[in-house]
Amino acid sequence: MIRIVFLGTGAGSPSLSRWALSTAIVYDSLIGLLDCGEGCQIRLQQRGISPLKIRFVAVTHLHGDHVIGLLPLLQTMTLFNRKDMLEIIGPKDLKDLVELFMKISRHKTSFNIIYKDPLEKISYNDKIFIKGFETCHTIESYGYLIEIKYKKDLFKICFTGDTGPCENVVMNCKDVDILIHDATFLSEHRDEASASGHSTVEDAAKTALEANVKKLYLTHISSRYNDEKKILGEAKKVFKESYLANDLDEIIIF
Amino acid sequence: MIRIVFLGTGAGSPSLSRWALSTAIVYDSLIGLLDCGEGCQIRLQQRGISPLKIRFVAVTHLHGDHVIGLLPLLQTMTLFNRKDMLEIIGPKDLKDLVELFMKISRHKTSFNIIYKDPLEKISYNDKIFIKGFETCHTIESYGYLIEIKYKKDLFKICFTGDTGPCENVVMNCKDVDILIHDATFLSEHRDEASASGHSTVEDAAKTALEANVKKLYLTHISSRYNDEKKILGEAKKVFKESYLANDLDEIIIF
Repeated sequence: MIRIVFLGTGAGSPSLSRWALSTAIVYDSLIGLLDCGEGCQIRLQQRGISPLKIRFVAVTHLHGDHVIGLLPLLQTMTLFNRKDMLEIIGPKDLKDLVELFMKISRHKTSFNIIYKDPLEKISYNDKIFIKGFETCHTIESYGYLIEIKYKKDLFKICFTGDTGPCENVVMNCKDVDILIHDATFLSEHRDEASASGHSTVEDAAKTALEANVKKLYLTHISSRYNDEKKILGEAKKVFKESYLANDLDEIIIF
Repeated sequence: MIRIVFLGTGAGSPSLSRWALSTAIVYDSLIGLLDCGEGCQIRLQQRGISPLKIRFVAVTHLHGDHVIGLLPLLQTMTLFNRKDMLEIIGPKDLKDLVELFMKISRHKTSFNIIYKDPLEKISYNDKIFIKGFETCHTIESYGYLIEIKYKKDLFKICFTGDTGPCENVVMNCKDVDILIHDATFLSEHRDEASASGHSTVEDAAKTALEANVKKLYLTHISSRYNDEKKILGEAKKVFKESYLANDLDEIIIF
């Protein structure tokens, strides 16, 4: 079975219903994480996903709400005596953060970590392929294109992380089956979106339309919004196949 | 009103019911945190405690489950445009972790942080006094004695963080009203407790007895134990006024 699990769908500061960003791609026992914000290991437990089976963690950028959950997750993997190597894909400075944390906590992981450049195309068991591309945010930031081979099909998922409206996202997410896009703000807060390098719901929908994707999932939603119908309404006006991701939602692909 | 709020009472790796260690001392609008493990800001929301009102965070040691929640909490304080200075009490290396995180995430806090030595006695509004003391763990580690002035009373709380049985804890927690003590293991796992610098429930109860405290609250409980009666039974055999802290429990003092 292949599924996408939205572990956290919040932006910046978490709310009780939307925690920091994290999404799992689960292909039988092969699991990858896209971002790992605070609380990511609690959400994994809530969905019965073992930290021991996570093969890679792809981090979009180094704002805390996308990456801080990785540190305690590494500690838990060590407490569980993980032996399998883990690949961490992300900006270079991420290695410094992990290594300083290990140094000051006098910990050593029970497994090897291999750090990968986001722009390198990586294959896992010849089933999942992942490659990053630059997005338009306030700091070094990558989205990820994930291709999943299942029987004779090749299913494509694009995960933007944080981005404003971005030509490079349109190019790299062309014709994908599922686009998971930053939708931090409603259009009424467009100025705030521009100032912080984020997209409005409408921006996300326009990108989905332009990239000719099959389905759009809105994520990274500001905690100020409670009206799900309003969010979805704004997207659907532009792109009919729009969906709102909520924490712990799952999409079963095959 | 003065209350103690157990935000997280788990050990090492969190379970769904026991998250990483964090405890709040709330004296009207003056709030201090003792440790701040992953998810601490979610727990604060669940108890309606504003991050803007936290005056100090006292960290016992730099294992991830005691400190990692501080980084996203600082990010949230900045998103909320906090202006009041925050004091962080803890081991020296903590400053390096916070500063590296700020550097690689290209963030700057909207407020000043002052770092304090755990062994210095600090007063907040002449209402709360805090002073650290060394405990017996595997790395540099401090417990905290908190004295709270209320009308003509002086209420004393001792918070050990992680520690094995420790003469210095007995000395520093002498005659306190509330001792909050590491109780990671049951006696049946005494060897594991010794090897990892932790206490058994029985160790904690013996310390409470020896230090002549009024009440003992057991915290930092391993996620392997579900039988609360068994934990409490082991403690009460030695020290009658023993209580088991659970996540989100509150003690109203005055």
